[in-house]
Amino acid sequence: MKPVLHPDIADIEAAAVFAALADPTRLAIVLAMAEAEEFESRCSSFTDFGSPSLLTYHFNKLREAGVTRVRAAGTSRYVSLRREDLDARFPGLLDSIIATARRDPSVPRIPEGRLIAL
Amino acid sequence: MKPVLHPDIADIEAAAVFAALADPTRLAIVLAMAEAEEFESRCSSFTDFGSPSLLTYHFNKLREAGVTRVRAAGTSRYVSLRREDLDARFPGLLDSIIATARRDPSVPRIPEGRLIAL
Repeated sequence: MKPVLHPDIADIEAAAVFAALADPTRLAIVLAMAEAEEFESRCSSFTDFGSPSLLTYHFNKLREAGVTRVRAAGTSRYVSLRREDLDARFPGLLDSIIATARRDPSVPRIPEGRLIAL
Repeated sequence: MKPVLHPDIADIEAAAVFAALADPTRLAIVLAMAEAEEFESRCSSFTDFGSPSLLTYHFNKLREAGVTRVRAAGTSRYVSLRREDLDARFPGLLDSIIATARRDPSVPRIPEGRLIAL
């Protein structure tokens, strides 16, 4: 399995973060993670938002921009928001993004409790 | 001259706003407008950021997403941030975007005093 690469905090760029959020599905993924009680969610529990291949594409965009961290464990992948890193790099931005996604009815919602951590 | 169209407040979408900011030059334009003392800037005073045709492309992206308002007067065009509209639609977002652009050294800066309003 290929290693999962993440940008260092100092290499997270504003334009790349905004590009990662320039899609309603990716905003929905970020919002669902922010509202989940678990720190991590299994990538395969986001299937409400698209096919596995489409989700892989979206998860890659978020990870490469520094918005999320992906952890591989066996055959499963787990995703989490890089909250501490983003708060350190761009204070307040993640909270503002989450509040913005929440106010936009065009951002899809995942049914409550559907995200699975383990 | 074609009329300049702007989305209504209620039609401003989060993903479109983020797409408009997914480029260092457009972030630089937004930051320069936020830091200018004038409410409006002449579009042609942003030439530090690119050729006229490239700037037209960037100004269109920002306007179509609802981030800026463009006003035509004679042969000139003037651009301003839609601060009140954005603050009403997504409270706090514009300030967060400006603070984020300011913290990112990869966002180009315009020399102070270069933007011309009149």
